[in-house]
Amino acid sequence: MTVQHETFISKYKDILEKELSASIHKLNAPQALKGAMLYSLTAGGKRIRPILLFAAIDAYEKNPEKGLSTACALEMIHTYSLIHDDLPCMDDDDLRRGKPTNHKIFGEALAILAGDGLLTYSFQLIAEDEHLDHHQKIWLMKMLSTCAGPEGMVGGQVADIQAENQELHLKELEYIHNHKTGRLLTYSIIAGAKIAGATEDELDLFEKFSRHLGLAFQISDDILDVIGDEKITGKRIGSDIEKKKSTYPSLLSLEGAKEHLAHHIHEAKETLSKTNLKTDLLQYLTDVVAGRDR
Amino acid sequence: MTVQHETFISKYKDILEKELSASIHKLNAPQALKGAMLYSLTAGGKRIRPILLFAAIDAYEKNPEKGLSTACALEMIHTYSLIHDDLPCMDDDDLRRGKPTNHKIFGEALAILAGDGLLTYSFQLIAEDEHLDHHQKIWLMKMLSTCAGPEGMVGGQVADIQAENQELHLKELEYIHNHKTGRLLTYSIIAGAKIAGATEDELDLFEKFSRHLGLAFQISDDILDVIGDEKITGKRIGSDIEKKKSTYPSLLSLEGAKEHLAHHIHEAKETLSKTNLKTDLLQYLTDVVAGRDR
Repeated sequence: MTVQHETFISKYKDILEKELSASIHKLNAPQALKGAMLYSLTAGGKRIRPILLFAAIDAYEKNPEKGLSTACALEMIHTYSLIHDDLPCMDDDDLRRGKPTNHKIFGEALAILAGDGLLTYSFQLIAEDEHLDHHQKIWLMKMLSTCAGPEGMVGGQVADIQAENQELHLKELEYIHNHKTGRLLTYSIIAGAKIAGATEDELDLFEKFSRHLGLAFQISDDILDVIGDEKITGKRIGSDIEKKKSTYPSLLSLEGAKEHLAHHIHEAKETLSKTNLKTDLLQYLTDVVAGRDR
Repeated sequence: MTVQHETFISKYKDILEKELSASIHKLNAPQALKGAMLYSLTAGGKRIRPILLFAAIDAYEKNPEKGLSTACALEMIHTYSLIHDDLPCMDDDDLRRGKPTNHKIFGEALAILAGDGLLTYSFQLIAEDEHLDHHQKIWLMKMLSTCAGPEGMVGGQVADIQAENQELHLKELEYIHNHKTGRLLTYSIIAGAKIAGATEDELDLFEKFSRHLGLAFQISDDILDVIGDEKITGKRIGSDIEKKKSTYPSLLSLEGAKEHLAHHIHEAKETLSKTNLKTDLLQYLTDVVAGRDR
């Protein structure tokens, strides 16, 4: 099945990337702003969040393109968060995926405004989408603001900054991950399901699935920082230890972290199978997200 | 009528400010983030945008409180834009309304995130509002993202940065003002009208009214920078000249700017009277916004 799944992923990655560019080009806005927004939007990446959204629609055997605007909105929110995170007063990163970060090219002022623009525009994309009904649009915008805002990603980012140079307990570490990256991953899945017409019970199952998926993603990331191959991961090994960051291996030992990872992957897949939907693609993506392919 | 209007303004300013605080307190988010958001939200100001929104509802003799969430959303967007504008890489302001700016108290990272949080939360407030119907909510969120995003305020802010140290033509100056401050003022009015059940024709008239109002506001601001009383305006006189900023007086002469101001106030009021609604409060606010009371 792998070839079929990889075909799906590359097909919808392509559709998404074309739509992202088109969304920016059609904006009636200063060229400098559009250039800065487009630069980071087209800087590559696995597009894992949009792919999860499309895959959740595919589980209902509906046309994934119905979720195209929402997928673009999601990727814009993710991209804005990277631009703001990379700023000198935050993580102060000069490079992302081997390319200069937004503020290195456009300056800090424009980088902040490009982020603000992407965040704001994401709601416009959903509000203007003609393929969604009123109920879906409101649900999608409400959940997007909850998952991306103070009760979601922005809250997690603040908790992460406050945790710098502190020894964390497992609960605190999970709070940060559940908010900083988890809530937007959850949104990817439940937004796709909602667009496909999910019931409340199915949304609950997908939310549970994505909670396990999000933690698996983070634990795997932490493990790879200890044992990964720099050539494959594209990241420098041992950077968490250097920064004295609390990680799953540092709190649970490497073996404990691996057990934790296996547990969350197992739970994620078990939860998926309870939906009685066509979830083979999501099962496959669970392994991808949990780093089994890295 | 002035006493009655002033009573309306102070009553709804009070209602708004209580609701703004309550909206932040009820958030399930890190205290540090809530503190930084609340600090700037409660730092004072005339609350002119929310008051215009309430006044537009009042023109239909409906209960202004129906617009309370949208008014809070609007003030949050305005506040986030001030926080980001004040950052060292933008205007680098240490004080706003006599108080230290957000980043002087909380640091740049938290200031940026407080802005991001306010921007994102504003959509949540509208999406969760139980007093609005589906059609209104979608319209309000779509217009908010358009007026505040790349095609609105964020676009105007970029154009303003690019115009620094450049001699502008009147058209370029109007582009900046129409976007940087004008679009959100327009939103204040048309959002209120929409909530009250405005027809398309009425919305068109209100949009025309608010375009004149927004320009009157900006021209008046520029004139006061030349001839105002620092004790009354709370701003240092002559700062535009020091910064070599293009202004209406610098492009049109002081007399020309005054004529321009009178023209826009006249047009604004003429347009209002064409609505055949109870617009005495909006007429009064036109004088307030255009600086006739300063």
